[in-house]
Amino acid sequence: MKTLIIVSHPEIDNSQTQQFLKKGSEEVDTTWHHIESLDKIDVLAEQKLLKNADRIIFQFPLYWYAAPFGLKKWEDEVLTRNFIYGDGTYPLKDKEFGLVVTTGMPLKDFQHGAKENITLDEAMAPYRAIAHLGKMKILTVFSVPQFWYMDEDRQMQLLIDYERYLSQKMPDSLLNREEWFNDRLNKFVSKLDDGDKFTGNLILDTFTNNKEDLSQLNDTLKMIKNGEE
Amino acid sequence: MKTLIIVSHPEIDNSQTQQFLKKGSEEVDTTWHHIESLDKIDVLAEQKLLKNADRIIFQFPLYWYAAPFGLKKWEDEVLTRNFIYGDGTYPLKDKEFGLVVTTGMPLKDFQHGAKENITLDEAMAPYRAIAHLGKMKILTVFSVPQFWYMDEDRQMQLLIDYERYLSQKMPDSLLNREEWFNDRLNKFVSKLDDGDKFTGNLILDTFTNNKEDLSQLNDTLKMIKNGEE
Repeated sequence: MKTLIIVSHPEIDNSQTQQFLKKGSEEVDTTWHHIESLDKIDVLAEQKLLKNADRIIFQFPLYWYAAPFGLKKWEDEVLTRNFIYGDGTYPLKDKEFGLVVTTGMPLKDFQHGAKENITLDEAMAPYRAIAHLGKMKILTVFSVPQFWYMDEDRQMQLLIDYERYLSQKMPDSLLNREEWFNDRLNKFVSKLDDGDKFTGNLILDTFTNNKEDLSQLNDTLKMIKNGEE
Repeated sequence: MKTLIIVSHPEIDNSQTQQFLKKGSEEVDTTWHHIESLDKIDVLAEQKLLKNADRIIFQFPLYWYAAPFGLKKWEDEVLTRNFIYGDGTYPLKDKEFGLVVTTGMPLKDFQHGAKENITLDEAMAPYRAIAHLGKMKILTVFSVPQFWYMDEDRQMQLLIDYERYLSQKMPDSLLNREEWFNDRLNKFVSKLDDGDKFTGNLILDTFTNNKEDLSQLNDTLKMIKNGEE
């Protein structure tokens, strides 16, 4: 699966959060496409990038409940109505559309009656409306609130969740997670040198056994529910 | 009352709708401030303009369920969090905030289940959230759908409604409308030359009498309701 990350940030080199996420994106099969780094927007080239992707992500810091103006400029130029409809062919049809939104505010502020008085989901409605018009499949928003306050453990958890958001089969079910972790673990072990490979394979076996145990447990539970035990 | 219209349109000279609205804005006491005409955005000067206004309007054509990128650029630069909060003084507090949105689509498309699958109100939520944060008073959205399809009568009606949106006391009650029309009629008659002034004053008298009749009728209705007749 090819994932295209349309990143918008006016000062990306100074953004620790974006640099951190970029490293994560490099661990999985993605294209990192930073809008503000483009000399000029080549509409046809951008549209081709979109057509070639299976999953399209808009990633940005939340400025006034929306993306920075750089992404809006890109939208206004690249996403012609004609391209989104494609004269009835809908070139983005069935592609997945996701949003990665970083914010300096805590998530609890994004509620009615709280400080921001709007939910993150409501603020993202205009982007979803475009995706809907293009008959895309809409993913839930991946929010990154207050990155700088996270300790190292939470940052690592964020990184894995982000990598899954970019590359894991959706919906985010237990089965799809297992498959993703299994795949990642296999790749990791195959890269180890011979000395570590023995230990690596032991871990892999344990993971696979646990997965099988879990699967059997699930089957047993189903049987009990159906009264077939 | 001083009304500031922040207009965003990348090709305003080619927009018949914006030129038409501009003429209307000149009939009432407003400042027409076109963002894309600015050589550069002078943040302090823009903030001063906002502080001096009683009613602030964002006016733009709907591009992808939001303003053109020019307004977002202006927002990202001018509306610092510090300015909106003003270190707890809230410089925009109690000012009115309105939105004038033109669109090529009919309003019926802006519903869930319809073509656009988002209401205009939902699309405008990010702007309202800014106004809310600044403790402003939020006006309903003034939408201008499919201007080119309007016949001359509907265009004239639109113009009057637009002028009222810019300058009438809100809420849009019968009393506030009457006052606004009375004021406009007075100004109009005072500008007539002596020959026409006689007819003008007759019209003005009729309007005032009708208003008084209506007012008396209202009082009578109230008394009947209260059983005092």
